This record gives sequence, C-alpha cells and structure tokens, in this order.
Amino acid sequence: MPSLDELVAYANQRTRLDAYQDAPGARNGLQVANNGAVTKIGAAVDSGLVPFQRAVAAGVDFLIVHHGMYWDMPQLLTGPVYTRVKTLFDGNCALYSNHLPLDGHPEIGNNALLAKQLGLTPDRPFMETEGGAVGCSAPWSGSRDDLKTQLEAQYDRVVPITCGSTTPSRIAFCSGSGNSAMKELVKAGIDTLVTGELREEWFNFAQERGLNVFLCGHYATEVHAVQALAAELAAKFDLPWEFIRTENPL
Amino acid sequence: MPSLDELVAYANQRTRLDAYQDAPGARNGLQVANNGAVTKIGAAVDSGLVPFQRAVAAGVDFLIVHHGMYWDMPQLLTGPVYTRVKTLFDGNCALYSNHLPLDGHPEIGNNALLAKQLGLTPDRPFMETEGGAVGCSAPWSGSRDDLKTQLEAQYDRVVPITCGSTTPSRIAFCSGSGNSAMKELVKAGIDTLVTGELREEWFNFAQERGLNVFLCGHYATEVHAVQALAAELAAKFDLPWEFIRTENPL
Amino acid sequence: MPSLDELVAYANQRTRLDAYQDAPGARNGLQVANNGAVTKIGAAVDSGLVPFQRAVAAGVDFLIVHHGMYWDMPQLLTGPVYTRVKTLFDGNCALYSNHLPLDGHPEIGNNALLAKQLGLTPDRPFMETEGGAVGCSAPWSGSRDDLKTQLEAQYDRVVPITCGSTTPSRIAFCSGSGNSAMKELVKAGIDTLVTGELREEWFNFAQERGLNVFLCGHYATEVHAVQALAAELAAKFDLPWEFIRTENPL
Amino acid sequence: MPSLDELVAYANQRTRLDAYQDAPGARNGLQVANNGAVTKIGAAVDSGLVPFQRAVAAGVDFLIVHHGMYWDMPQLLTGPVYTRVKTLFDGNCALYSNHLPLDGHPEIGNNALLAKQLGLTPDRPFMETEGGAVGCSAPWSGSRDDLKTQLEAQYDRVVPITCGSTTPSRIAFCSGSGNSAMKELVKAGIDTLVTGELREEWFNFAQERGLNVFLCGHYATEVHAVQALAAELAAKFDLPWEFIRTENPL
Amino acid sequence: MPSLDELVAYANQRTRLDAYQDAPGARNGLQVANNGAVTKIGAAVDSGLVPFQRAVAAGVDFLIVHHGMYWDMPQLLTGPVYTRVKTLFDGNCALYSNHLPLDGHPEIGNNALLAKQLGLTPDRPFMETEGGAVGCSAPWSGSRDDLKTQLEAQYDRVVPITCGSTTPSRIAFCSGSGNSAMKELVKAGIDTLVTGELREEWFNFAQERGLNVFLCGHYATEVHAVQALAAELAAKFDLPWEFIRTENPL
Amino acid sequence: MPSLDELVAYANQRTRLDAYQDAPGARNGLQVANNGAVTKIGAAVDSGLVPFQRAVAAGVDFLIVHHGMYWDMPQLLTGPVYTRVKTLFDGNCALYSNHLPLDGHPEIGNNALLAKQLGLTPDRPFMETEGGAVGCSAPWSGSRDDLKTQLEAQYDRVVPITCGSTTPSRIAFCSGSGNSAMKELVKAGIDTLVTGELREEWFNFAQERGLNVFLCGHYATEVHAVQALAAELAAKFDLPWEFIRTENPL
Repeated sequence: MPSLDELVAYANQRTRLDAYQDAPGARNGLQVANNGAVTKIGAAVDSGLVPFQRAVAAGVDFLIVHHGMYWDMPQLLTGPVYTRVKTLFDGNCALYSNHLPLDGHPEIGNNALLAKQLGLTPDRPFMETEGGAVGCSAPWSGSRDDLKTQLEAQYDRVVPITCGSTTPSRIAFCSGSGNSAMKELVKAGIDTLVTGELREEWFNFAQERGLNVFLCGHYATEVHAVQALAAELAAKFDLPWEFIRTENPL
Repeated sequence: MPSLDELVAYANQRTRLDAYQDAPGARNGLQVANNGAVTKIGAAVDSGLVPFQRAVAAGVDFLIVHHGMYWDMPQLLTGPVYTRVKTLFDGNCALYSNHLPLDGHPEIGNNALLAKQLGLTPDRPFMETEGGAVGCSAPWSGSRDDLKTQLEAQYDRVVPITCGSTTPSRIAFCSGSGNSAMKELVKAGIDTLVTGELREEWFNFAQERGLNVFLCGHYATEVHAVQALAAELAAKFDLPWEFIRTENPL
Repeated sequence: MPSLDELVAYANQRTRLDAYQDAPGARNGLQVANNGAVTKIGAAVDSGLVPFQRAVAAGVDFLIVHHGMYWDMPQLLTGPVYTRVKTLFDGNCALYSNHLPLDGHPEIGNNALLAKQLGLTPDRPFMETEGGAVGCSAPWSGSRDDLKTQLEAQYDRVVPITCGSTTPSRIAFCSGSGNSAMKELVKAGIDTLVTGELREEWFNFAQERGLNVFLCGHYATEVHAVQALAAELAAKFDLPWEFIRTENPL
Repeated sequence: MPSLDELVAYANQRTRLDAYQDAPGARNGLQVANNGAVTKIGAAVDSGLVPFQRAVAAGVDFLIVHHGMYWDMPQLLTGPVYTRVKTLFDGNCALYSNHLPLDGHPEIGNNALLAKQLGLTPDRPFMETEGGAVGCSAPWSGSRDDLKTQLEAQYDRVVPITCGSTTPSRIAFCSGSGNSAMKELVKAGIDTLVTGELREEWFNFAQERGLNVFLCGHYATEVHAVQALAAELAAKFDLPWEFIRTENPL
Repeated sequence: MPSLDELVAYANQRTRLDAYQDAPGARNGLQVANNGAVTKIGAAVDSGLVPFQRAVAAGVDFLIVHHGMYWDMPQLLTGPVYTRVKTLFDGNCALYSNHLPLDGHPEIGNNALLAKQLGLTPDRPFMETEGGAVGCSAPWSGSRDDLKTQLEAQYDRVVPITCGSTTPSRIAFCSGSGNSAMKELVKAGIDTLVTGELREEWFNFAQERGLNVFLCGHYATEVHAVQALAAELAAKFDLPWEFIRTENPL
Repeated sequence: MPSLDELVAYANQRTRLDAYQDAPGARNGLQVANNGAVTKIGAAVDSGLVPFQRAVAAGVDFLIVHHGMYWDMPQLLTGPVYTRVKTLFDGNCALYSNHLPLDGHPEIGNNALLAKQLGLTPDRPFMETEGGAVGCSAPWSGSRDDLKTQLEAQYDRVVPITCGSTTPSRIAFCSGSGNSAMKELVKAGIDTLVTGELREEWFNFAQERGLNVFLCGHYATEVHAVQALAAELAAKFDLPWEFIRTENPL
C-alpha cells in the first residue's frame, strides 16, 4: 500500500509544482493530511462539502482537486468550514490541490487535453509565466463554424462570441477563467480562444479587436487534468480511482 | 436646447452620484465632453467602439453608459482607444457614466427595476455601503419554480443554482456581477438571489450554505437603469432618446 | 446541557470581545467548533499539541486559551498542525481564544488579578486603546524591596530591573509581553512595572529613564484570566472545569 | 510620405526608449495617434493647449514633446483636457513624448548638447540608471567665472550658487530639475553642476558641502534634445520641421 | 532668565503647533535641546551649517527656523551632519522648528505678513487643512501691473506669469513652494497667486486656465514669520533677538 | 595615532559589513563621529547613557557596540537622546555599530565564539542570508545534560527547554534573539539550539516538534564579538582597549 508521502512527491514532481507562481492565497500541494496511507484516489474540480462527502462515501482517501480550500481559507474551523474539514478528517481523506501546474502541463494539463479533445496537437505555449506556460495553442484548418459544432458536441453550455475571422488559422486554449487571456491573445496575434468563463467587460474588447471566444464553462473545461493525474497515479501505484462529479453549472 | 452642463448636473443629483464610493478606477459622471449642447440622448450598457458608432449614427450627442471607459482607462490615445475616442469627438458625442449609483437607485436603479419586473416592491436595502445600498430585497410568496419560470420568460440565458428553499420567502437583487453579494446574502439571512453572473467558485459556497441563485446575465440585468435615466432626462429636457443595444451575451 | 453557542455568546459578551482591536492575525472567539454541546470546560494559556492532548484526556470539550492558533495559523492542515487539529476534532473539543479582552478585563482580566494578588485595587487604566485599557495601575505604599519580596513569593522566575525609585508610589501591570508598555509607562508618569517578559533593548531604556521593571514570566502572568473565565462559566452553566497546565518556562 | 509608425519606430530605437525606467506615470512613446501619415514634424518642450494650438497652426501633424501629458493625466476628457486633446484630434496631430531617454542620449540628449554648447566633450556618465545615464560630465579648464560668463551669454535667467571651487576641474550636466543630482554630485566627487531648477532646500546642502550650481531654467535647458530629434527625423524622412516655442519662464 | 521649556511651550501654543498635519518627516517643535536656559533668540529660514555658525557667533542659544533638520534627517551623526549638530551642541544652541503652523498663522504667519506687506487685510482662508488654513487671500482693487510693481519693489527676483486677468479682484498668498496651491487656486475661483517657487510644469497649467502667478522666491517669502515669532518671544520674555540671514537665492 | 577613518575602514572590511542586509532601521558602521583621531577603543553590547558615560570615563574615544542607536532612532535630539548624544560629543567619543555581520563572522562572530566556548568547531552555516550566514552549527558528542552543565558553568541565567533528544548529535548557535532561528532549526534537521532569548509562543513550537533550546541571555551571548573585534583592532593599531560592561539581565 503506497504512502501519502509517495503519492504527493510523485504528483508534485510530475506537475513541476514548485515552478509555478500561483494566485495569491493559492497553496498547491497537500492541504489536508490523513493517516499516511492511501487506498483509493479521487479526482474533483472543486473543494466543498458535497465533493468531500461524495469522495468519502466512495472510499476515497486521497482526493485531488483543481481548486483547493484557498478560495475560502479555513481561518476559523467553525460553521461550514468545520463541517467540511470534519468530513475529511472523519473519512481519513487527504486533500491534494493542484491549480496552475495542472492547467499548463503539456501532457496531462487541462489545456493540452482541451486541444486533444478537438484532435489537435498544441505546438506553441500560451500565457507564458516564469515557471512555464499556462495555456497552449494549435493550428486549425477548419472554419469557425466547424469549431463551434465540435465544441457544442462536447460541452453543454457553449457561449460563442464571434467577432473574429470565420476561418481562424490558430486556436488558443485557456481552461477556467479567460480574463487574463484576452490581452495575451492580442499580443500573440491569435484571434480565437477556447476558454471557460469571462467577465462581462471583455465582450467589447473582443468586439473592438475582432476576436472569437468560445466559453465552454469554467468547471467543464477543468475536469480533464485532475482525472488524468488521478489515472496516472492509480496506474503507477496500482490503486483504484474515481471521478467525483458535482453539478456546478458555472 | 439644453446644455451639457444642465443634463450632467441633473443626472448627478438625481442619482446621488457623489454619495457612492465606487470601484477603484471607476469615475462616475461626465467622462468625455462635447461642444456643450445636447440634442439627443442615448443609453447603452457598455463603452466600446460599436456602441459609440451606433450612438453617433443615431444622432446621439449625450450617451449614458453603465460601464464607462474605466475598465480600460485611455492611458494612451492610440490603437483601439484612439479610434473609440475619435468616434466620440468626431460625432460631438459626450459620454456620461454612472455605475453603482444607478444600480442602487430606489426608483430608476437596476435592482429596483429588476424587482418591479417581477411585480415586487423592494422593502429592504441589500449590500449597504456608506453612501447607500447597491441592491434591494423583496418578499416572495410564490415557489422557487414560479420565480424560475418568470425569469426565463424575461431573460434569454438563465442559469439556475437551486440549493436553497423551494419556497423562498424573500428575494435579493444584485444586477451585474454577484460575486460580492454571496456573503452578504448569508449575513442578511436571505436564501435566494437574482443576479447577472458569478465566478465558478461560488457554486460550492451556495451548495454548502443552501442558497438559490438565478444568473440572468450581467449585460441583461443592467439594461434597465440607463434606459430609465435617459427617459427621465428626455422628458425633463424635452429631448428624444434611444437605447443603443449591443449583442453582449455575457 | 448547555450548548457551545451559549457559552461562546456569554464569554464574548462578558469580555467585551468585539470592543478590542487585537494584534494582526489574532482572532478572538471560537476558533474550532465541536458537536455543539459542552460537558466540561478547560482553561489553558497556549494552543499546542500537548495542552490539547491533556485537555482531551481530562474530558474537556470546551477549551479556553489565551493564545489561540493565530501565532501559527493552520494554513495547511498537515504535519504538526494536522496532528494538533485532529486531536481537537477526535476529542470533540472546541477551542475558544480570548487575548487582549481577557488581559484588560477589570474583574477577571490578567492585570486586575495580578494587582489583586498583591492586595491592590487598581484605580487607573494603563495602556488605553479605543476599545478599552489593556493594563491597569494601583497605588503602592511599601518599598520596592517589599514588592520584590512579594513577587518572588508568587513567581518562580522573577527578573528585577531596579533603575527607578526605591519607594515607588504607583505600580503598573501589563501581563505577558511588556514591550509596548515601556513608553506608556513614561507617558503615564509611573516608574514601576510588573510584566511578563521584555526584549533585551528595553533595559537601557529603563536605565536612561529611571524605571523599575519586574519580569515574572509571560506564561506565569497569564494563567489567571483563563481560569477566572472558566470558573465563572462553570458556575453559570453548572459544569465542571479544570486548568490545563504546561511547563512553559517563558 | 512616411507613416506615423515608421517615425515612432525610428525615434524609439534611436533614443533607446525601452531601456529607461522613467518617473511613475510617465509614458514615453506615442501618446496620441493621428490618421497614420506624417507631413510635418514639430518639437516642443511641454504638452499644453498653447503649444498644441501653435503646432496645429504651423501644420505640424507629429509633435515631439519632452513632457508628455503624464504630468496631468487626461483621466477625464473634460474641461481643459478636452480642449487640449480635441485640438490634437481636430488638427490630426500625433503626440510623441520622450523624457529621460532624450535627456541622457549621448548625441542628441539635452545634457550632451548642454556640454556641447560650452564647447565641451563629455567623457563620463552622470546619474547612472539601469538603462543608461541621464546626465554626463566633462573636464573644465577655465575658472568658475568663465563658466558663469558663458552661461549668462546663452541663458536669460541664470541663478548662480557659488559655494565650491573658483577653478572647477569638471562640470556635471543635468537638464531640467536638478533635485536628484545633488547627492549624485557628491558621490561622483564633482563640485560644479549646470542644471535647470532646484528646490529651496538644496542651497544649504550646496553650502555645507562646498558645491557650485548654475540654474539656467528647466524649460531653457530642455529645448535642445527635442529639436535635435526633430531635425534628425526630418532629414531621415525628408520632411519639414519646426520648433514650437512657448514663453515658459520656469 | 527664562527656561528653554517656557519658550517652547509659549511658541507651540501661540502657533497652534499640534493642530497642523505637516509634511511626512517634518517634526515641528524643539529638535535640539540646550542646557535649559535661554539668553538670546535667533531667527533663520533654514537649518544648515552656516546659519548655525552665524547664530552661535551672534550668541544665540535658541534658534527658530522655518525649515528644521527634517529635510535631511540626521540619521547618522557623521560628516556634514556631525559638523552641523556639533556646532549647535558646542554653542549650547537649541533648535526650534516651525513650518506649516508659521505659514498659516493669521497674525504672525508668512502669508498674513505677505498680505500686510502689500497693505492688504486677508479675509478668507486659502489651502485649508484639517488643522487650519496654510494660506489666505485678500481683495485687490488695483491692476495686475500695480501688483507687479509693488512686489518688485520688495523682492529681488520676481518671476511673473501673467496669463490671467489684468485687473484681478482677489489675490491668494502661499509662501514658499506654490506647487500645491495651483489646483486650490482654481477651486477657489481666484486667478492671481503670490508665492515663492513653482516647478516647471505648472506654467502650462497657468496658461491653460488663465492664471497670474508671481514667484518672489521661496526663501524670500519665508523670512517674515520666524522674525515675527522671535520678536514676540523676545518682548514677552525680555530677551534680545536677531535675524540670522543667509544668501539663499532660491 | 590612527585616524577614525582607518579604524572604521578596517572594521567594515574585516566584518564584511556591506554584505549583510540587516534589520529595517539598523545602520551598521560609524553612527557618531569624533574629531577624527582615536586613542582608546571600547567595546559594549548596547547603546545607552550608562555605557556611553562609562566609556567616556574610561577615556574611550572609539566605542564599538553591537546594538547601535537604531533601536530608538534619535529623531529629535531632546530629552534622554540629547543627554546620550551630548555625552558622546563632549567626550569626543565616536560610536561604531556592528550587528548581524558581527553575529555571523566565522572567526570573531558571536556564534563562532559561542561554539568555541564549548570547545566546538562549527562546520556548517546556520540561518543563511544572501550576504552570509548569521549562525553556525557544530557536531556534539556528549549528552544533553553535558551541554546544560557546561552552559550553566558559563552563563548566570540559563533557561532550558528540553523537548528534544537527550543525546543531540549537532548544536546550532544563534546569539541574541532566537525567534527567527526556530523554523530554521526544523528546516536544517537540527534538534538543539543555543540562543539568548525567545518569545513565549515558541515553547509550544519546541514541544510539538521535539526541540531542545537553551536560553543563555540576549546580552550575555553577545558580549563576545565586540570584545574580539576591539582586541583585534587594538592589536592592529597598537591601541589600548576595554570592555564596557553594564548590568543588563536580559
């Protein structure tokens, strides 16, 4: 039976965890420990009472999440935070969080997998940071309508903003929130972006600069990497794994 | 023919413009002057090249917007900013921006009008600030399904998050972005919110705390107040007015 | 059986918890919840694995501490923090922290009780803040040697700094760290301080300004108030209570 | 007919625009665009209504200034800022600003040209920054009186501070404001400075440390570089150019 | 023989020293002590080696300055700072600094005395702060040329900026640096300012907004108040006093 | 007779003074000058009236201190600060301060000398900073009790915290305050620290992580390096030297 430390060490190294400078408050890596042994791996997008309950009910004792508990730091272990953490403690379930490193990973990252879902091979980094790129881009030989059709086949809620070329030659990918991707798009000379969500004010930016943006959902575009990492860990350490889905429509 | 100064003074006073502390960078009031006279009023949600072009094409020389040019401050009057400002200058079109004061106004504010659209009379302030409340709330006697049905009749893209009571007794309103409304909702003891958009992480917050949220679109929930202010100014100063619509799906 | 909420509410009100502006990072009040019921109260000076283990072993399920977990905020629930918090969770032991309000309380505060220990009745506030004084002072009719003798009878490790009057007319009290009390002493025109600990550089300050300071230990001067509050809660709610001692020599 | 982009690119590269870290708020480079073509170049020291009006009246459509509009950022395009910017837009006159890079340039910079005016060849950098030196210094073989006589022949308002050597061996140059040059002077072991203006408190500094300072006017010492750049661009792109003078006595 | 403490206490109270919020780093009041007794009062504008030497040579043991040693805080008592402070210590000369309170005093302040010099009686505060106004203004019935003539009769170096009315109806006074007065002038609806010095960029501001400014020298406009305070203290405490002049041309 | 400048230059270079980034406000090097010549060297731990008086009484005109006047910056030369500085000026006694560089020096630093006192040879740096290590560590072959016995033989007030191994294999040294050493200890995998003082909250840290700490006094652990530097300078420049002791018990 593999130890918690072994899984954490492998996952940290595999995703180049220390290379990335993440958002203020974000803490990649192990956030909650367990008794030190792992028997089943879970993968979820978000931290929260319901994903934790479902993970524990499924027998998971090592839960990988894309969004750790940093969005709402457990300053005081009271109220909903108490309940949430107690669920993990009582279920002996460790919590492992991995945000930007998992978005940007060239093999098991959300953006690499978004491209792969469309049959594409990314050949350029997008949204480069000191530690590595967060996104990627790939050539596109179809029309904009082809792209829309394929995305709508794979995602429930696609919001298209079609102010750019009808025959884009390249597509950039930015899973989750695309707010910081918009200016990068212009700098990179790419006119078409697949992302999760955008604040309202970016529509006019897209309209003024002639950009296409396809919003496929923040949650929906970030289910890929946690599953890939869980599957890889499961194979490596000979453990079962399971995806813990929630109904997040955002 | 009324002067630009008269319209600005009336609108500022009517909306208690100086009372509100708005977002950093936001500048409520006149943002771009014209030659000093006004012959036609326009109302738009956003600043941008297309709404400015449509306003000028419609003969508007006093354009009221909810989102001024502060989202992308014209630091340098070059590129798209040059084009956007030149459109206003060449069209002799003044730009008047009014954000939080227009959200919170008890008669012509977005939230008061959202409530009115559902046949409700707000009787409590919501999201209070030093200068005044931004939102409001009103008693509700129907079911949650009734509310959903009514909203879907009035808005194209309603995203329901239904983790709260099936028979809410009160509904809070927060036009545009609801991110800052979520914790206020809990403090106020209200379990149902009508708003425009939410970042992904608030879904788990709603789920943990048992809240209903109906997202009706940031743009879509903010078309009301600029129209109401334009109509009132038009009546007061005996001028024509027109709503300048764009296709913002966000 | 009283509820956790009742005890917390009583203790907060009794100590005027919200009035005080405490140190950055300090969070007075409930820091860790339990299952909602209380059967035995504990009082300790510090948070830490050993005081938590001893409290749980003693059957305590509501532990009052003077120093909450804010000195070393449980950012990640891993390593020693995991063990410490798990001890509380497994023992169903709530953690209630109360710092400056308990130093300054005129009846059950550390400084009032330090004065009482010497048979004195404080008649002036010392180290006043917006929310209330943290310390107090009382007239003294004996010699400085009398004071020294009495303190050495009550405390194991007294470090005397005797640069002031041999017959002080007034004594100021500041439990715990006295670093912020030294300049206040000069302002108040008092030349003798009883406190817990001082950083090295204040010796010269005392020497230049002719001040007496008796250091009786940070821990040792702060055992009083948590006991007083525990005893009062125990009487009020008809519960047993116990002091959880550790061997802190500082 | 050369394009605006060509002129900007040439001027940016020629002055190593990106190398310098300028004052907070300063924005070197193109600040206001025009229709994209240039037929006549202007050079002025300051931004302002009068220099803009005179430039437009002279047919200038590319105005080089040393002080861009950053001293009084056009936050709102209203009042005097509206008038000032509208003057440029209506006259199709682009505004190009270049501050520290033009002070420090070894051939066409203000300080190199100040030295040249005295028949000197600078051989050492002065006021070095990461991107390059802002000032320079040159050996001097005459007396301090010789220097004073020459400066008074070239500048209308020379204020001499003569607390240093009567036979300085080296002179430092810092066009415009000399406030940040005074401590640098001491560090560099030079006792004589030619600059534009100084705040009052530096007189005692000069007196205590035995320094000579000749204040020749901020405006007057900064007319040189914009003219040199304009002349060079004019020759390169075969365009006419003109200096746009104002009566700034400071 | 009056004590140092008596003079300091009188001067602090007379000038409402504690009411004003001065510049960061400025420390109004006693900056350097002496042996506690005063036999002769001096008044100077600036701190510095030469004014200190001249004061000590004149037998002054209480030197009032407008600009204390805060412009160049004696962090380390080495080099010129050592020499400067040693001069005071060896001469047993106390240093008393008084900045904004002495500018704004309605009877013995620099601005009140500037107005009086022109035969005017200030009837409105100018540049109001929480603690009191720094400047003042007075009605003017002559022409702008009359004003210029009178100022040139009293000050050696007057720099006129004459972009405003030729017959101003009111004059504002701001001794020393006028940089922070320019926007206040516009707010107060006054078009003519008498001040000491201005940075270069304000010329265009004056030109765009149609303002007159007469620069009479920072030092020269601040000799008045220190003399008035010294004379008043001398009379009150029956002591001799002397003005310690330096040759500051700024 | 050596000059002040020579001694300062030698001491600065010998201790690599410029390499260290010291605490905010700390100013290593010459803090108060004298007439430029040195006839006798003094060494003291602290700045203060009493050590300055004793140094002057002993004929010292170059006083080396570990704690300069930065702990209580002489903002205003009044009250106790006036008296303290006047003592130095009247005694023609220069003050030279050297903090972290003297803690960390591998030959004459406090930590190297603490180790030497126990007969140990440090072989690893401890508490490394960019400029160099502040502490050091050395192997230990005796028991914890041996260590305690030796320390108690050399220091008057040893406070032992014995939560670690009874047979430590390595000892880290951090003279003065050990607050910043505790987390470094864990990182370095060392379980025993010799230091001067600790704030109260570190006891639980030591208890949770199983660490031994011996507190020997802040003052007492910092008498070594100033003496070593003074002795070395005395030998080098053929001058007498003397240790200026005070009774600091902290």
